[in-house]
Amino acid sequence: MGADHRLDFRRVHVLAAADDHVALAVDQADVAIVVAPRHVADRAPAVAERLGGLVLQELDEACARALGDGGEPGPAFLDFPVDVLRAEVPAALRLAEYLRAAPRSRLLPDPDAVERAVELLWSARRALVISGRGARGAGPALLSLLERLNALYLDTGESRGLVPDDHPAVVAAMRGSVMAQADVVVTVGRKLDFQLAYGSPAVFGNARLVRIADNVGELRDNRRGEVELLATPADALASIVAAAGTRAAATDADWATTVRGKHDERAKKLVEAMRNAPPGGDGRMHPNRLLAALRDAVPADAIVVADGGDFLSFARVGLPAATYLDPGPLGCIGVGTPFGIAASLACPDRLVVVATGDGAFGFNAMEIDTAVRHRAPVLIVVANNGAWAIEVRDQEETHGKVVGTRLQFADHAAMARAFGMHGERVEKADELPAAIARAMANRPALLDVVVTPDAPSSDAKSGLAWVPDLQPLAAWDDAERRWRAT
Amino acid sequence: MGADHRLDFRRVHVLAAADDHVALAVDQADVAIVVAPRHVADRAPAVAERLGGLVLQELDEACARALGDGGEPGPAFLDFPVDVLRAEVPAALRLAEYLRAAPRSRLLPDPDAVERAVELLWSARRALVISGRGARGAGPALLSLLERLNALYLDTGESRGLVPDDHPAVVAAMRGSVMAQADVVVTVGRKLDFQLAYGSPAVFGNARLVRIADNVGELRDNRRGEVELLATPADALASIVAAAGTRAAATDADWATTVRGKHDERAKKLVEAMRNAPPGGDGRMHPNRLLAALRDAVPADAIVVADGGDFLSFARVGLPAATYLDPGPLGCIGVGTPFGIAASLACPDRLVVVATGDGAFGFNAMEIDTAVRHRAPVLIVVANNGAWAIEVRDQEETHGKVVGTRLQFADHAAMARAFGMHGERVEKADELPAAIARAMANRPALLDVVVTPDAPSSDAKSGLAWVPDLQPLAAWDDAERRWRAT
Amino acid sequence: MGADHRLDFRRVHVLAAADDHVALAVDQADVAIVVAPRHVADRAPAVAERLGGLVLQELDEACARALGDGGEPGPAFLDFPVDVLRAEVPAALRLAEYLRAAPRSRLLPDPDAVERAVELLWSARRALVISGRGARGAGPALLSLLERLNALYLDTGESRGLVPDDHPAVVAAMRGSVMAQADVVVTVGRKLDFQLAYGSPAVFGNARLVRIADNVGELRDNRRGEVELLATPADALASIVAAAGTRAAATDADWATTVRGKHDERAKKLVEAMRNAPPGGDGRMHPNRLLAALRDAVPADAIVVADGGDFLSFARVGLPAATYLDPGPLGCIGVGTPFGIAASLACPDRLVVVATGDGAFGFNAMEIDTAVRHRAPVLIVVANNGAWAIEVRDQEETHGKVVGTRLQFADHAAMARAFGMHGERVEKADELPAAIARAMANRPALLDVVVTPDAPSSDAKSGLAWVPDLQPLAAWDDAERRWRAT
Amino acid sequence: MGADHRLDFRRVHVLAAADDHVALAVDQADVAIVVAPRHVADRAPAVAERLGGLVLQELDEACARALGDGGEPGPAFLDFPVDVLRAEVPAALRLAEYLRAAPRSRLLPDPDAVERAVELLWSARRALVISGRGARGAGPALLSLLERLNALYLDTGESRGLVPDDHPAVVAAMRGSVMAQADVVVTVGRKLDFQLAYGSPAVFGNARLVRIADNVGELRDNRRGEVELLATPADALASIVAAAGTRAAATDADWATTVRGKHDERAKKLVEAMRNAPPGGDGRMHPNRLLAALRDAVPADAIVVADGGDFLSFARVGLPAATYLDPGPLGCIGVGTPFGIAASLACPDRLVVVATGDGAFGFNAMEIDTAVRHRAPVLIVVANNGAWAIEVRDQEETHGKVVGTRLQFADHAAMARAFGMHGERVEKADELPAAIARAMANRPALLDVVVTPDAPSSDAKSGLAWVPDLQPLAAWDDAERRWRAT
Repeated sequence: MGADHRLDFRRVHVLAAADDHVALAVDQADVAIVVAPRHVADRAPAVAERLGGLVLQELDEACARALGDGGEPGPAFLDFPVDVLRAEVPAALRLAEYLRAAPRSRLLPDPDAVERAVELLWSARRALVISGRGARGAGPALLSLLERLNALYLDTGESRGLVPDDHPAVVAAMRGSVMAQADVVVTVGRKLDFQLAYGSPAVFGNARLVRIADNVGELRDNRRGEVELLATPADALASIVAAAGTRAAATDADWATTVRGKHDERAKKLVEAMRNAPPGGDGRMHPNRLLAALRDAVPADAIVVADGGDFLSFARVGLPAATYLDPGPLGCIGVGTPFGIAASLACPDRLVVVATGDGAFGFNAMEIDTAVRHRAPVLIVVANNGAWAIEVRDQEETHGKVVGTRLQFADHAAMARAFGMHGERVEKADELPAAIARAMANRPALLDVVVTPDAPSSDAKSGLAWVPDLQPLAAWDDAERRWRAT
Repeated sequence: MGADHRLDFRRVHVLAAADDHVALAVDQADVAIVVAPRHVADRAPAVAERLGGLVLQELDEACARALGDGGEPGPAFLDFPVDVLRAEVPAALRLAEYLRAAPRSRLLPDPDAVERAVELLWSARRALVISGRGARGAGPALLSLLERLNALYLDTGESRGLVPDDHPAVVAAMRGSVMAQADVVVTVGRKLDFQLAYGSPAVFGNARLVRIADNVGELRDNRRGEVELLATPADALASIVAAAGTRAAATDADWATTVRGKHDERAKKLVEAMRNAPPGGDGRMHPNRLLAALRDAVPADAIVVADGGDFLSFARVGLPAATYLDPGPLGCIGVGTPFGIAASLACPDRLVVVATGDGAFGFNAMEIDTAVRHRAPVLIVVANNGAWAIEVRDQEETHGKVVGTRLQFADHAAMARAFGMHGERVEKADELPAAIARAMANRPALLDVVVTPDAPSSDAKSGLAWVPDLQPLAAWDDAERRWRAT
Repeated sequence: MGADHRLDFRRVHVLAAADDHVALAVDQADVAIVVAPRHVADRAPAVAERLGGLVLQELDEACARALGDGGEPGPAFLDFPVDVLRAEVPAALRLAEYLRAAPRSRLLPDPDAVERAVELLWSARRALVISGRGARGAGPALLSLLERLNALYLDTGESRGLVPDDHPAVVAAMRGSVMAQADVVVTVGRKLDFQLAYGSPAVFGNARLVRIADNVGELRDNRRGEVELLATPADALASIVAAAGTRAAATDADWATTVRGKHDERAKKLVEAMRNAPPGGDGRMHPNRLLAALRDAVPADAIVVADGGDFLSFARVGLPAATYLDPGPLGCIGVGTPFGIAASLACPDRLVVVATGDGAFGFNAMEIDTAVRHRAPVLIVVANNGAWAIEVRDQEETHGKVVGTRLQFADHAAMARAFGMHGERVEKADELPAAIARAMANRPALLDVVVTPDAPSSDAKSGLAWVPDLQPLAAWDDAERRWRAT
Repeated sequence: MGADHRLDFRRVHVLAAADDHVALAVDQADVAIVVAPRHVADRAPAVAERLGGLVLQELDEACARALGDGGEPGPAFLDFPVDVLRAEVPAALRLAEYLRAAPRSRLLPDPDAVERAVELLWSARRALVISGRGARGAGPALLSLLERLNALYLDTGESRGLVPDDHPAVVAAMRGSVMAQADVVVTVGRKLDFQLAYGSPAVFGNARLVRIADNVGELRDNRRGEVELLATPADALASIVAAAGTRAAATDADWATTVRGKHDERAKKLVEAMRNAPPGGDGRMHPNRLLAALRDAVPADAIVVADGGDFLSFARVGLPAATYLDPGPLGCIGVGTPFGIAASLACPDRLVVVATGDGAFGFNAMEIDTAVRHRAPVLIVVANNGAWAIEVRDQEETHGKVVGTRLQFADHAAMARAFGMHGERVEKADELPAAIARAMANRPALLDVVVTPDAPSSDAKSGLAWVPDLQPLAAWDDAERRWRAT
């Protein structure tokens, strides 16, 4: 292990994954370490001479695990001791099998389980399908099932875009009702996490579960399925539709139609309300006015990155997106800007918009320097309400005193210009369309849009800022306690 | 969480798994925590009120992981804080789905990969199949492939019995040669671990690999397969045979016949040599005389548990077994006696024999008290050579001095009788058949058979006691170094 | 790091420390790793070339930490990677400073703190001194303080023998009362652990604390002292006595005399009761008869090792000892036999007696083979009540059912003889004196004394087998709850 | 643990410690968690009811450990589970002893060790004293020893200011020579870390060591002292001087005078060179011109915070300071700005200057917003060379290619102004004095001074950017290898 020979890392790239297209950015690299949103594996190679030889093999395995080949996808962490970094991999150990792209393992479903799934689904009166991260790549099969079954549908941030927002199965605005009313629930690559009340019977009643995923983390967390299909979701869904043949679904068409009707009404009302949201008591623009302007300007295939505390709960609801990224559950705010930069480099043919609160922006604001230097064509929109607003409200309610969470409506556009980025500050809603158009044309660009801190988000109102003990929402927590006491 | 209500653990059993029959012993229990040979997952539930409710769910998940449902099987460790142990699971949370037996997930293979496997295998001139733990349950499909392909076969302790010892594909005695000569190697639920030279080209040459397993640990450790089938092994093998249809294998029949012939010759010679192994310089019996006597007395369907340092390397080779257990790689000696007790309770209709050295026996010798109290019908045979022999040799060679590793030929039969177990000490080889017969008839029983410490095992000779840096055997290590230097 | 040069571990000894005399056993070794009862430090040396050089330095530091030089004593754990074990320390790095015995650091007390301690102590009306592990070596200074102050005294297992049992300050039998009545409490090298109610005001009332120790673990755990002396205890105590000069103590002499009188009375009653303890309902001997016989036979300077669950709570109270070892808080039962073997080798001029229950003995019973082979002159006395009695009672009370905790009154004497150790089984109390005498004369020796499982220990009665949430005793727990609610 | 009662953290402050004056800032808080530069202890309280009660006690212990009361000072990490955060400490458990300021433990030295130290020191011909973090508070005693002994002296960043730069013992510019020439070396609260060649005989020759510290980390790391004094350094030094009485030191006065003479010469040359440092090939100012201007403007009692990669190695040498902070060994660059903000709030009566490279500044640049909002009167000076220069050089040498480490000479002054801070960009050396004066008068303020990336720092030249295997400097590493081979 001489000090003058070193492992060549020049062709190893470290990327944040915007979506499945991540592979496109890797074509110039031998190996990519993908920093994806969740944990898969810690594999710290042991000491000494063997290690130089293990480097390629461990990098290969790390890529496979990061991409979820044979398990749950997520970050793979490799820690190389200094002496290994200084070693050279012997030529004999540079086996081609560790460097070539391996086809991802495809799991076909157990026919018996498929049969049982069909029986359960085609007997359902009120079927609900919920997709998650693992459903990516299963779009056509998913549409086919929804249509054959006349089922209703809920997505999650990670599977946005698989089913278009205007598809008749989409009932996002009726989330609470359909979760309570469904008699059969299908999860596709979707954990029953806090967004789904952990699948609790307190919220889902006696609904029977069909669970479909290619990894156990998404297959049986929190609740076991009456039918469980450990298989590649696209194959599992296609097999179900094929096995059902021409059998007629038992879905209650009135129920589906009624729920869809209410969803459409609510969705329209929301957009309407956004467009006309009144300014705060301080006269500053409502954040929904900003989101409404972005809805109008951003193309349908844009990648939307949302970030923030209070503002995230506006943006999550107010911005449609074919591909969507945010800090995720238990994630750290501030990742919006770097996510957006990476996505704009990985997918140069799509518009990437980062919609972030000013508090969250501050965490990694200096990355605008990175964006300029690497010509990353990202559009960053800061909703500047001069506060970590969700903390301000929590401190007021919990401690009766605000400490260190009020900001100063600082001029982030001036900061952007200091780093050579197109930057504009916008204080009036009617100036937004033109400013957005100029920014889109001059990317990388930053718009610093002054909004009111007086607009309480749905999260602030419904209680997400103060999480109860058993369920993430006060109403669900109450239901959970009542149910447990039975 | 009152102190007077407690989780009922009366129906939760903790078992060591002898084999797949472990389920038989669990019928009286609500839940079984299976302590199997390898690590799967540490999941330490978090604090507070939620936890009482998570207990059943985590136990259910622990069982699924321990049994390898959707991943690599192995021990699942749950650590319940004291306040959780004192809590009562609310009635509402005792969901039937956590208590019922769930069908194990079955993974069907990707047809494209099957096609590529057939192409590779049916073009092979010298095909070798190697099975491992994950092949359990795939016996008929395995036999079918071996026959269609006219391939040769190597097993491992954990898959013993799937292919009978007298099957024409078995070439265990030619292990080294076939590993070097094969042009295609199929691993079925088998890691390329130290017993297989980590799959190194230094030993396997340019052989092309087909890897079949239902978990990534057995699918792609150390070497990537040219074809990889992530699927339930029985299904993967059956699909391959089916896809091959009537296509004729390209196997070099002369090669197969020659290797088999040499294997038969060696195997016969070994048994012959065992029967006639001469006593040591101290006049004491050779351990192979004991193993030869056991071969004659033990029925074909017996469960054999081998344990020890030096003695294990005799027993591993000298004792055939339909089911076989030993401490495993990186395992701790001494587990033989408790493994044997558990297996004899789990499979009361099969004879369970523990063949152990005296040093290893001493680790858990007091478990004979357990065997007597629980009437576990195990037969323990101690090969008593008055030493931790493999350590004695290592100390002599490495340090030139023996410290604390010579034992005293203690009378373990007298110890057994002190605990109410049938115990006999045997010092002459010709007394063995009758003593074995008496012990088999009076189980639990222990035979303390005095053997010579002068018989160096194959491991002691070939270097396992002093492991080289890169490969476990000196010869392989040399080959590895030569190959790396190329 | 050639494979043919190795670190010489022949002169590195691993010992269990019986007491401070451990150094005597080390004179033949270059370095000793002392396995003492508590954790000090994990220092896992890092990888590569530096490591060969760090070995001696880390061993030196490990010894210093294990012996408590500059911190709390306890086990030091070093984990050497295999390649380091195979390396040779370069001659230049074998610095004498890592191999020579370093004088232990001596800390002198802050004179201001001494002054404050004197003021507090010499104003006390009811002063209580409690010693712990850290007081070892401070015997004369401790006696001097007790006498000058006319204080009362409680010890702990680890500091047994510093103050003779017949010293007028000793009031062990009045532990509960003096803890409640004292107005000033001095801890000397003593943690306020569960045995001292964590120092809670619920038990100690408004007593003011003086804490003396040479490490922070014993100086300020759980409660802060009104005066804290971080200093070598012998020096701190001597400085206090010196600073007090001829000042008269304010101790209430009546209180001291009354408490001592009650202590004497109780202590006498206890011995009387032990000698006459009636047999169980099953006719078997009461365990106190065994302890009474040992009291008569064992010399005053003996090292006593007690082990067991239920039996430990009899032995801890019933056996006086100049040096005493048991599994300690959170310790593992079964250590009695190996502790006794090590102590008998470390202190060959003192009698070492292991008094153990049969359940605990079973954990490491095979070490009698070690004792015989290494001629360790230990006397092991097994109180054989055919049960893990404390578990039997817990299971009966908690689950209403006994599973796997009843043993079989096995013949441990026969087992001892099977390994060449003097062994006798004793079933009648009047045979004990002669049997003990024979065993003492024929060490290593084991007495298997059959006793009744019907005698509930004080722990079983007072609740140690079922530990409450806040304090280890039900009565203290009640007091704690009442006090917290105030 | 009701959800509506919560622990009151309003009076718990979290601070970064600038120096011992940290206590001044805490007077409004009940408890301070001091985030100091090194690790002391992780104490994660366990679960459940006890915990509410332990909160104050653990906070008290955390403060004691952070401040080094009875051990090495450093960060103390407490992790409170959510349910504990929501609990209220019962009134009975709010013991005053956990809230009051406890006097820090003072350790007096062992007189025997003092005697041995005097003997060694007063026989020395070439005595060298080296102070470290632990020497803080020992200034007068240190001066007294230096003068009585006529010894030479080296400090470290953490003990800057104890001995004035113009004291005749100071020979910082002759560091390498005195380390090699000294025959006795005294470390005072100073680790023998990489800055001191780990104390290796390869660099220190046969010098004999006296080590003085109040914690074992600084007492005996890497090398054992021939005399070791575990005591409060001020007391240990005073005791040594007192014990020496009027004994005459044996110091070689010629040696001391010669070394001091050379030091003065070099120091003068360095300042001269700084003032006249020529611009880079790009015409931009040399960073030493900036440092020279700061030397002239900054008062003697200023707190200097240095940060950066390449620039740090200029600033460490070029800026005198009564109190000095930098990222420290293994520290993370970027801490300069937040350190400076905290220091300016903790010590409002002293000027605080942060001298940072532009790369390091970028890590936490957004904290200028914090400085403005909290009116922290810090002066930040960015030496803007448009690069992570030390990485640029490393990449060029190691990989022959620069990736992502060239920056863009961004306008940090404009950024500062965007957040309401006084900001100026300076490109010419002769404009510095006036700009510095304006900035000092308008704090918080930032100067963005454009400097050349062409000036290689001493670290870049001597090899710190490429650390060898055994010693941090190439020259020392060579010496180490030669010495080991002897």
